[in-house]
Amino acid sequence: MKTDLNELRQLCQAILARHGFLVEHQHSITETLLTAQQDDCHSHGVWRLLGVLDTWRQGKLAADVLPYISHEAGAVVKIDARMGPAPTAFALGLPKLMACARRFGVGILAINHCVHFSALWVEIEQLTRAGLVALNMTPSHAWVAPAGSTKPLLGTNPIGFGFPRANADEPYVFDFATSASARGEIQLRQRAGQPLEAGWAIDAQGQPTLDATAALAGAMLTFGGHKGSALATMVELLAGPLIGDLSSQESMAFADGTATLPYGGEIIIAIDPAFLLGDEADAHLARAEALLDQFNPAGARLPSQRRFQARQRNREQGGVVVDESVLAELRALLD
Amino acid sequence: MKTDLNELRQLCQAILARHGFLVEHQHSITETLLTAQQDDCHSHGVWRLLGVLDTWRQGKLAADVLPYISHEAGAVVKIDARMGPAPTAFALGLPKLMACARRFGVGILAINHCVHFSALWVEIEQLTRAGLVALNMTPSHAWVAPAGSTKPLLGTNPIGFGFPRANADEPYVFDFATSASARGEIQLRQRAGQPLEAGWAIDAQGQPTLDATAALAGAMLTFGGHKGSALATMVELLAGPLIGDLSSQESMAFADGTATLPYGGEIIIAIDPAFLLGDEADAHLARAEALLDQFNPAGARLPSQRRFQARQRNREQGGVVVDESVLAELRALLD
Repeated sequence: MKTDLNELRQLCQAILARHGFLVEHQHSITETLLTAQQDDCHSHGVWRLLGVLDTWRQGKLAADVLPYISHEAGAVVKIDARMGPAPTAFALGLPKLMACARRFGVGILAINHCVHFSALWVEIEQLTRAGLVALNMTPSHAWVAPAGSTKPLLGTNPIGFGFPRANADEPYVFDFATSASARGEIQLRQRAGQPLEAGWAIDAQGQPTLDATAALAGAMLTFGGHKGSALATMVELLAGPLIGDLSSQESMAFADGTATLPYGGEIIIAIDPAFLLGDEADAHLARAEALLDQFNPAGARLPSQRRFQARQRNREQGGVVVDESVLAELRALLD
Repeated sequence: MKTDLNELRQLCQAILARHGFLVEHQHSITETLLTAQQDDCHSHGVWRLLGVLDTWRQGKLAADVLPYISHEAGAVVKIDARMGPAPTAFALGLPKLMACARRFGVGILAINHCVHFSALWVEIEQLTRAGLVALNMTPSHAWVAPAGSTKPLLGTNPIGFGFPRANADEPYVFDFATSASARGEIQLRQRAGQPLEAGWAIDAQGQPTLDATAALAGAMLTFGGHKGSALATMVELLAGPLIGDLSSQESMAFADGTATLPYGGEIIIAIDPAFLLGDEADAHLARAEALLDQFNPAGARLPSQRRFQARQRNREQGGVVVDESVLAELRALLD
């Protein structure tokens, strides 16, 4: 059903305020979830607020502390989220990251000790809007087996990427899990008694399975076989040890049997095309347009294209689409 | 057959000298190809010298000019290869890139206007040996259709990545094409009259095909469906327009109907873990070891593991393995 954006904003903020979240967290969490909701990206929309509050109730998210800049040198900025929500830490680091990219051509923002629940593209688009190229990654919980493994060693480990476009309203943006499917999709099929797709999961003995219950007791698989597994491992390394933070296994150990949100780090790399290309930036970025403009005529969608269409539709029609049962659950939190 | 490494080195250098390649190119090309040959990586070994010479004969590779540093600012170094071979440009940029990573935490090396034929891991391992994390990419020729497209818009666009390992002899390294198969594999199956695997290619009408001849007239596909296609497009953007260089389509146009090697750019990003982690580097890199050490016991191979085993075997046995017909073709170039 269509809901007024401002009403939804006020609802989210009121819920977070009621539960003792600092005003900075109220704002950053709400805007992050609303941005996803406006694109009909329900899995990362206001529904996630339920998971945020559950994680807070389990003592695995700090609502009453603020992130701080823990390290700033060269082209690197590290933010310590202090077990707080990632979006507040990102908001603190964003101007620093942009300044690094503009000054050195490239910058790295490392967010440490954060609870992560936001769509990576929400951050990516804040960088592409500033004319920067961006890449980000975060581990999750260790649900995913690399190709050949009988055990889950990796998280669903999403990768986000964005490239600003000169002649298009929207940037080139993708954001996908390196797992073959979303964990939520397997849970949905379990509830509906439906089989999984081939290549999604193995059972506890390491054998391929189409049974959702067996898969949840076993492991999910990465997309793209050994190549996808290599990328998922890269995410673990870059957004884990490299920035001094947890692997997906360690995040899961921290959850200690609870179904709480992943805890750990995120790495964001930003590159300034204007720094690299100088006066020739326009001419060279036109090459990108010449390539991307051929996708639709050749029958290929650009990543995020459906999401951008939903954004446009929701803007024109006014309001955002929210599942009625989610809305009811959220409203009940204020009772 | 086993060939003495030094004899093979002298053979390659003599061939390059005979064809007017500057001594810097003789050295960088030979060492790059030998490094691959020593790992039984035949597709990027001394066999490639035939392609290098063919590209030179067609006037699409400059043997008699040297690369120069075209731009150096912040954490970015650009090398203009002046239509010369990529390895010589990489050798010139490598110390600059390492200095950027050590000074700023991260650095970018952009190689422009180069002829590319080397395995990305050869470069990656030079950075991991210095304790740096590295990521590199290069476009190729536009043989590959993104998911849904009926036309080839992308190159085989490989991605290389390396992470230094504290407790292992070899780093974590991967290097793979974002196409589902190698173009050479499709050509081999055409010659052998064998069908392709499902998901490798489409015909000229955009329909899936297992026929190698139809595939070569149509397009290859990316690995991993729309996710692999998104990554392949990222490679085009990062190693093309972002660094002021050609897309795979433009490289193909430059080849002008000849079967010459790709011409364009390469991007290499290096990150210094010691800069990011300071005194805590050892403790945090131990997290990476704890994760990677679980792969083999769980049944998963690490990427490059078979390659490292070949390297070890060849070292112990002395000499390198070279196909006899390749050796004969190379020797004939000196007649």
